[in-house]
Amino acid sequence: MPQGQPLVVPEDGLTTRQRRNRPLLVVHTGDGKGKSTAAFGLALRGWNQGWRIGVFQFVKSAKWRIGEQTVLERLGELHRETGEGGPVEWHKMGSGWSWSRKQGETEDHEAAAREGWQEIKRRLADESHDLLVLDEFTYLMKWGWVDVDDVVATLTARPGHQHVVITGRSAPPALVDAADLVTEMTKVKHPMDAGQKGQRGIEW
Amino acid sequence: MPQGQPLVVPEDGLTTRQRRNRPLLVVHTGDGKGKSTAAFGLALRGWNQGWRIGVFQFVKSAKWRIGEQTVLERLGELHRETGEGGPVEWHKMGSGWSWSRKQGETEDHEAAAREGWQEIKRRLADESHDLLVLDEFTYLMKWGWVDVDDVVATLTARPGHQHVVITGRSAPPALVDAADLVTEMTKVKHPMDAGQKGQRGIEW
Repeated sequence: MPQGQPLVVPEDGLTTRQRRNRPLLVVHTGDGKGKSTAAFGLALRGWNQGWRIGVFQFVKSAKWRIGEQTVLERLGELHRETGEGGPVEWHKMGSGWSWSRKQGETEDHEAAAREGWQEIKRRLADESHDLLVLDEFTYLMKWGWVDVDDVVATLTARPGHQHVVITGRSAPPALVDAADLVTEMTKVKHPMDAGQKGQRGIEW
Repeated sequence: MPQGQPLVVPEDGLTTRQRRNRPLLVVHTGDGKGKSTAAFGLALRGWNQGWRIGVFQFVKSAKWRIGEQTVLERLGELHRETGEGGPVEWHKMGSGWSWSRKQGETEDHEAAAREGWQEIKRRLADESHDLLVLDEFTYLMKWGWVDVDDVVATLTARPGHQHVVITGRSAPPALVDAADLVTEMTKVKHPMDAGQKGQRGIEW
């Protein structure tokens, strides 16, 4: 809520405006629903601000296309047609990243994941996006595919004004420490517990 | 995740398909971020399915317009122009509901809140929407403006196939009991704790 007042005013020599406009590292973790959905909601909000949106989905299947991708890519098209909002790029690891020559060769998920992270590092250095969503990125660190210290050092030292949102269960403590905003989504009740399967429009 | 398997198959006489397509009552509660953002993300996803989306914001100021409203209303317009997605209605309590003759007379928030709930009851009876987002609706029950038993009875008995998403802190236990999917968003860390104010694109 915009009317929220900070509890503490830090002695960091920044004006309120400078502090307000600091780029954020946001983490959505926990075993509940809504981690990715809320991240894509932030992308929607950023698009409306004219931000350059980059979504990187570290998921297993590239055949899987969620509604948010369709809508955000449609909004990116709208930006090209009418100038409304900002440009949108949506990349999925699934069958090889779209920028990669190795598309379709997806046997080595670990290599593909590392390649995704290297590309994100390049984009952060180039300040290619105003908001980056690294969806289900925590697993790469959990599985040791990407080094947590490298991630934290890279994100902490990122230049310019780039917001980064990372989603996934089991966010490593070093990432939580480095983040500005961390929310844990906790499952209280889920229809699958009662035997209901996922459904179109709700789960994807 | 679509590949998720239910832990229990209930003996309710329904087929998997029938069970999959049951309308859901979803609650996003807790003191963390992302409750509304994830709800609007579901609206985005629903729009992409061609669903008729109805958002009802029980907020204090009508002057306040969040990015999601602009984008979802733009998507509703796109639906009218091209037939893509579904229709979108977005109503705010702020300066009197848009359907009300008393627009602008906002002194009595409790009356406005009750009026919003009565309108939602009518729409549920008429099956006007496929997905209804009742944003920050829990407070009405907390403050005793709307009766929890009435809400639960109405939602439990709603006809047809209407998904309902309710957001807000302190969801009453009876609502949680009645809900199919409940997620608690817990604040782990927030920039306001470190003296940072909310910022455009992130908070609104």
